[in-house]
Amino acid sequence: MTPRGAGTAGIKALCFDVFGTVVDWRGSLIREVRVLARAHRLKVDAAGFADAWRAGYAPAMNRVRSGALPWQHIDALHRMILEDIAPSFGLGDLGEAERAELNRAWHRLRPWPDSVRGLRRLKRRYTVATLSNGNVSLLNNMAKNAGLPWDLILSAELFQHYKPDPEVYLGAARLIGIEPAELMLVAAHKSDLRAAQACGLRTALVERPLEYGANRHPDPGPDASFDLNASSFLDLATLLDA
Amino acid sequence: MTPRGAGTAGIKALCFDVFGTVVDWRGSLIREVRVLARAHRLKVDAAGFADAWRAGYAPAMNRVRSGALPWQHIDALHRMILEDIAPSFGLGDLGEAERAELNRAWHRLRPWPDSVRGLRRLKRRYTVATLSNGNVSLLNNMAKNAGLPWDLILSAELFQHYKPDPEVYLGAARLIGIEPAELMLVAAHKSDLRAAQACGLRTALVERPLEYGANRHPDPGPDASFDLNASSFLDLATLLDA
Repeated sequence: MTPRGAGTAGIKALCFDVFGTVVDWRGSLIREVRVLARAHRLKVDAAGFADAWRAGYAPAMNRVRSGALPWQHIDALHRMILEDIAPSFGLGDLGEAERAELNRAWHRLRPWPDSVRGLRRLKRRYTVATLSNGNVSLLNNMAKNAGLPWDLILSAELFQHYKPDPEVYLGAARLIGIEPAELMLVAAHKSDLRAAQACGLRTALVERPLEYGANRHPDPGPDASFDLNASSFLDLATLLDA
Repeated sequence: MTPRGAGTAGIKALCFDVFGTVVDWRGSLIREVRVLARAHRLKVDAAGFADAWRAGYAPAMNRVRSGALPWQHIDALHRMILEDIAPSFGLGDLGEAERAELNRAWHRLRPWPDSVRGLRRLKRRYTVATLSNGNVSLLNNMAKNAGLPWDLILSAELFQHYKPDPEVYLGAARLIGIEPAELMLVAAHKSDLRAAQACGLRTALVERPLEYGANRHPDPGPDASFDLNASSFLDLATLLDA
């Protein structure tokens, strides 16, 4: 038992939330939008645009989770939100090709500086898998672009349910072929971890204080209700003896 | 256009049959059974046992495909066949722990000598994925054990259909986010390749003349109806400029 957490015996696999936990969606989107704006000589509030795009995500998923929208993957939801917000950020005149390319920015998100090295260490001892609401092709393109060394790419798309629906967490354990208590969810978001806990998974909070920029940190830790609290994937690897 | 095949432009991803194409199931099972027999001082026809276990596979899958059995993954089918054949090979007295461990031999199958190096080359240029009737956990354990560098582990289990049902080939293209014509199936078995062709996939035959031992080669090539014919994964990488 350590002050930072306990109870890691018997863990066989780690699954990772991706947006915010593995990759810096906000910084990556800001960079992409700035490049686009410069190329088209537009003046865009890139940080405001990134925040608005991400803010549309949970409500759109909830419309799918509630049945108000039929199942569709995140690429489609991102595009729907983009159509909604583009005009108010001065991007209303972008053509179809530019919109499709901008929507693919989510396939090119960049990892936090410790993500790749931490995953490489963890992979030597554990199965490391995504467990993301992002679709499989998005996660695969991201992994190939960023060098993320996943053993398995698991996605809400495989279960036709979005997190925090229990089907996602329990489906991951079933596909990996282990018990829920042998699977640890790693995430920067306490709500995701709490939903995993309710399904019997182990949990590790990795703080990403810059996810929403320097002035907003909605999920500060540590929190003793999780099995582990870590400051980075390298710290997590050390806590898990990897 | 070369004598060995043509038409590789526009290919974005390769998916691989696994049993026989990537790994040597027969040689691997023979080794495992010999070790087991020695430990228990049993006399077992290891090659005959491996062949009988594999021979039960297609009929068992067909019972699932026809609806005679409810959906179940390959681990369960392998175990069912093992129970059937164990007594006639002198393995009827094995206890539950030994049977479970023997059934896991399919998770430890060894790759052909060119598989890992060929996949590493192909992975630099293409998405490389399994497309196997083996379940996800079997394929993941095999990959970690053998060092197979998959980008994606795709399995019949994800579609609740076994090859050669079209749902498997079309489902793979859908999850990878590409058109069927942008996906190439690599297999040592012509029936698998023909079913993929019927779904619009590209095809590459890689001959594995030793799959059934030195005296039986049911699928000799080349065959001009496939896009490519290769003698190994290294040869395939060369044909695909990887």
